[in-house]
Amino acid sequence: MIVSDKPINIFEETTEHKPKTSFQSLLIGRPLATADAGHQTIGKVIGLAVFSSDAMSSVAYGPQELMLILAAAGIGMLKFSVPIILALIGLLVILVFSYEQTIHAYPGGGGAYIVARDNLGELPAQTAGAALLTDYILTVAVSISSGVAQLVSAYPILYPYRVWLSVAMILFIMVINLRGVKESGVTFAIPTYFFLFMMFTAVIVGLVRYLTGSLGVVANPPTLEVGFLQPLSLFLILRAFANGTTSLTGVEAISNGITAFKEPRSTNAGRTLIWMAGIMAVLLLGITFLSVHIGVIPAESETVISQLFRTIYQGRGLLYILSISATTVILIMAANTAFADFPRLGALHAGDGFLPRQLTFKGSRLVYSGGIVALATIASLLVIGFQASVTKLLPLYAIGVFLSFTLSQTGMARRWWKSGHLKPGEEIVEPGSIVVHDKGWGFKMIVNGIGAVCTLIVMIIFAVTKFKDGAWVVILLTPLLVTIFFSIHHHYKNLARQLSLENHPPRKRISRNRVIMPVSGVHVGTVAALQFASTLSKDVTVVHISVDPKETQKVKDKWEHWGDGYRLVVLNSPYRLFLEPLLEYIDKISAIQAPNEIITIVVPQFIPKHWWTNLLHMRTAESLRKALLHRKNIVITEVPYQVD
Amino acid sequence: MIVSDKPINIFEETTEHKPKTSFQSLLIGRPLATADAGHQTIGKVIGLAVFSSDAMSSVAYGPQELMLILAAAGIGMLKFSVPIILALIGLLVILVFSYEQTIHAYPGGGGAYIVARDNLGELPAQTAGAALLTDYILTVAVSISSGVAQLVSAYPILYPYRVWLSVAMILFIMVINLRGVKESGVTFAIPTYFFLFMMFTAVIVGLVRYLTGSLGVVANPPTLEVGFLQPLSLFLILRAFANGTTSLTGVEAISNGITAFKEPRSTNAGRTLIWMAGIMAVLLLGITFLSVHIGVIPAESETVISQLFRTIYQGRGLLYILSISATTVILIMAANTAFADFPRLGALHAGDGFLPRQLTFKGSRLVYSGGIVALATIASLLVIGFQASVTKLLPLYAIGVFLSFTLSQTGMARRWWKSGHLKPGEEIVEPGSIVVHDKGWGFKMIVNGIGAVCTLIVMIIFAVTKFKDGAWVVILLTPLLVTIFFSIHHHYKNLARQLSLENHPPRKRISRNRVIMPVSGVHVGTVAALQFASTLSKDVTVVHISVDPKETQKVKDKWEHWGDGYRLVVLNSPYRLFLEPLLEYIDKISAIQAPNEIITIVVPQFIPKHWWTNLLHMRTAESLRKALLHRKNIVITEVPYQVD
Repeated sequence: MIVSDKPINIFEETTEHKPKTSFQSLLIGRPLATADAGHQTIGKVIGLAVFSSDAMSSVAYGPQELMLILAAAGIGMLKFSVPIILALIGLLVILVFSYEQTIHAYPGGGGAYIVARDNLGELPAQTAGAALLTDYILTVAVSISSGVAQLVSAYPILYPYRVWLSVAMILFIMVINLRGVKESGVTFAIPTYFFLFMMFTAVIVGLVRYLTGSLGVVANPPTLEVGFLQPLSLFLILRAFANGTTSLTGVEAISNGITAFKEPRSTNAGRTLIWMAGIMAVLLLGITFLSVHIGVIPAESETVISQLFRTIYQGRGLLYILSISATTVILIMAANTAFADFPRLGALHAGDGFLPRQLTFKGSRLVYSGGIVALATIASLLVIGFQASVTKLLPLYAIGVFLSFTLSQTGMARRWWKSGHLKPGEEIVEPGSIVVHDKGWGFKMIVNGIGAVCTLIVMIIFAVTKFKDGAWVVILLTPLLVTIFFSIHHHYKNLARQLSLENHPPRKRISRNRVIMPVSGVHVGTVAALQFASTLSKDVTVVHISVDPKETQKVKDKWEHWGDGYRLVVLNSPYRLFLEPLLEYIDKISAIQAPNEIITIVVPQFIPKHWWTNLLHMRTAESLRKALLHRKNIVITEVPYQVD
Repeated sequence: MIVSDKPINIFEETTEHKPKTSFQSLLIGRPLATADAGHQTIGKVIGLAVFSSDAMSSVAYGPQELMLILAAAGIGMLKFSVPIILALIGLLVILVFSYEQTIHAYPGGGGAYIVARDNLGELPAQTAGAALLTDYILTVAVSISSGVAQLVSAYPILYPYRVWLSVAMILFIMVINLRGVKESGVTFAIPTYFFLFMMFTAVIVGLVRYLTGSLGVVANPPTLEVGFLQPLSLFLILRAFANGTTSLTGVEAISNGITAFKEPRSTNAGRTLIWMAGIMAVLLLGITFLSVHIGVIPAESETVISQLFRTIYQGRGLLYILSISATTVILIMAANTAFADFPRLGALHAGDGFLPRQLTFKGSRLVYSGGIVALATIASLLVIGFQASVTKLLPLYAIGVFLSFTLSQTGMARRWWKSGHLKPGEEIVEPGSIVVHDKGWGFKMIVNGIGAVCTLIVMIIFAVTKFKDGAWVVILLTPLLVTIFFSIHHHYKNLARQLSLENHPPRKRISRNRVIMPVSGVHVGTVAALQFASTLSKDVTVVHISVDPKETQKVKDKWEHWGDGYRLVVLNSPYRLFLEPLLEYIDKISAIQAPNEIITIVVPQFIPKHWWTNLLHMRTAESLRKALLHRKNIVITEVPYQVD
């Protein structure tokens, strides 16, 4: 390890560093080495569980928020929910066709960011990224708020604590994710299939009772919370539709995670997508139809789902509790998937230089800790700010999702266009995939084109109808985020150019090093610093700022004895300032400096043993350092002297 | 200014530094040079004004607080106020005799701290200092609160704002004192003599009306704010006496400021003291007698003084307003004198090494800015905490004053003892004065001894009777402060011993300087740092922490080209940590270091132009610096590279 003993070989590798146990490791687990990162693939059954919690959980709030808008025109108008849900299912079918094609074209994972980057360029890609990052945050806020709303519906006594319950859940998920749980498929499969089982049971029991005429209506429904009655207008219908589109968020998840599937990856992923969409369609329709039939009242104090369950099961019995629990758990799982996706997308952005580089570093447990903490913090603030109200959070949601859908589908359409103009056998290699000639390019382009147009229309409907409810925030935020991303990118590019050795070959050798050492007194610390300074250069000047003539005389007297013959310059400071006269002196020397001269400031730095003794000393060295770091051709050397 | 051109003369003085104008200079005035500090002496008439505001202003609250205690035994018991005031005047006479002697013995200024230090030793001196510093803070809090109480009595509409009015006044006095007003005697004389004129007028008019039978009683007195009636016990009388002693605070002021008087200093100061005491005695007795006679009700909502003025002047006319204004102004002046004394005593302590040295530095306006700001801050917090209530603040007051009286008188007695045991012609030179043989030493020792005993008894009465009302705070605080003072002293003494070149002659010359330079990448900044490092020593090792093998390979490739043949050590960090592996490496090198070897860590330090870009970089250099400052024989050199 004595490095100077091996002067011939200029490279040397050392044994590996092993960290010690700490409080942090108790909370989030022992550190993991980079080599520990493993990989496992999953089949369709597990895949459905892993990737669909976000999409399927939205059936818990989508229909309710749709009905809430219609209720403004009177309870009788809730019957329009069913045709609107059918329109949404139509939109879902279009999305499935579009994403099926994406899955096959991007077997390595085709998130909106990658598809837009490869096919549309940096600006659309950053826009998609900004939209997705915003939406992951809202997924957490909305899913957790909705999950807590279910819990509060079952136990109304918890209603006053809903905000803090939500924040506590977010922090809990944060810690779980900082531990970096190995996403074993089973941990996902159990709650997801339990949820599906409870939902299908409820829908089937409900339908059977409906057909046998024993379903009845909601007992003691919550009071309707609308102001004056509005007429049923096209605008109202479109607003209801817009709210309903939140049921479709999360559909894109499978296309991001194709690499997790067993081979043939794309086929397995594609089939899983179709299954997921089918299940969603059935649940959306079933829940909406039954809810309308039993006369639910959409309200914040009790969720529609809760009213439905207790009507179907005739009270808050075991089956009711199991169903509500399953719904709560699936909503928390949905938030959990955002905790996986947000930091990963953040790292992708950071790797491309559009977000702080720190986000690409994995923490001690091999997860992107920075992104996880950022997501939890912002989502918690949103939940607190919006008082955990799904209805208030919703206008911010879904715009981003549909913007990223549009960009992704447009990118796919452009890709088919490129594919159609390649000769067979030719290929374009892009960072995310390889484009080859595809005979069916025309049809596929039309499918993705229709997807793009439809999602664009939905986005516009959403933005217009929910503008004043809060959508304006996202409409302002997205371009702002994109601007920030590009500023960051500009900074990194600019820095790299300025630091590049090709552009700026190193200057000539240093011809002279002037050493300046400020001292307040002559003692062991300063004499040691002087000895060090004398090894740096023959040109050493010691500077004393004179505030008190008596003190200065003492310094001069001692210097005769201990100063080793070095120059002592006394700067008189009649206004009793320390820093300013010294900086003025350094400026004067700098002014006559040749380009390849360096000034080294040697600062004897007193390091007390106890932090509190710092209060008993002037922190001049620290201020001097801060003032000098910004000057060119000045090097700051601190010679610490420790005192016990 | 090219220092290297004058290698023969090792001392060099430069022209003086002149500071620039700043926001601070707008607020507190242009900086003053050390040579600007002047001196002027004053006569008895001005001297009385300068030094007596604290003592004389206490007549505004002393009698009231005395009556407040008696009122607990019933309004009829207020008549006992007069005998208690007579007892207090007796105590005042004893104090005057005692301090007269101190003034003659310490013509250079005989504050309790100096007298105790010279005659009793460090512990009593520090105790006196702690007591006095505490009491200066309370003088500000009590005087300002009482001043605002007078104002509020005249304008009851201001009552809800009394706390913020008080804080605003404290801050106003702070700014005035930071400007460092030249204490021109006239600025003191006008309000003091105006106050005396208004008070004597009121007392004389009151007495005339009393004798002619036209005085009457207070119209619409405030409601009495006592709980259940207490019996008149000795304890109650002693509590009332204790409260009354607050009227005597400030008597010692003249003995601190003897040097301000014209020659013969001691004689002039002594006569001023006697005049002041005489005036105080007349006012105390007059106010108390008249107040009892007109049936005042001691209360927080209207002061006794205000009730007295409006009864004497039959309403809130011009004379009432002038009298209340004069009282308010004298109370503010009293606070102002604490602003002069506290920082001066703080600087005295700091100079002796019992408080942070910074307190001895004079600010740009030649005042001890640190002490002024500290006093204003603590007094404001007290006023806020105690809601500007004189009654609530009072139990903390006076203990300190009487403790310092006792220590000072004991010190004087001890001094006469020493004086009596010197032969004529012999002398003991002490920091504060010169002790010579005094023929009357026996009598003088008895006078000061009686003073010491009386003030000790008063202090014990105060501590016991007000213990649970708040005196316990001071009883705990004083020893705590003394402990802190001695800890600070220990730190400075220990530091001076460790830094002394006599005790620790400098070690042998530095035999070897190993340079270690951590790099994260090879670029203009690191190559410049390497060039600098190569001027320091032949033994340069560059260290790269490897987290990402691809990045490390890039560094190695570039090093072949730009590394100038210097060793590059790669430290593998499988746990993705930067700092820890580097520190471990430095530890290993340190372990084999010879005593006169130095390790220099050269840190290439990236200095961004805009502060926000700091967020886009890992602040490794900063953390490294903090971690290394505490290690022995390690020097940290920062080579900053600025990027535009």
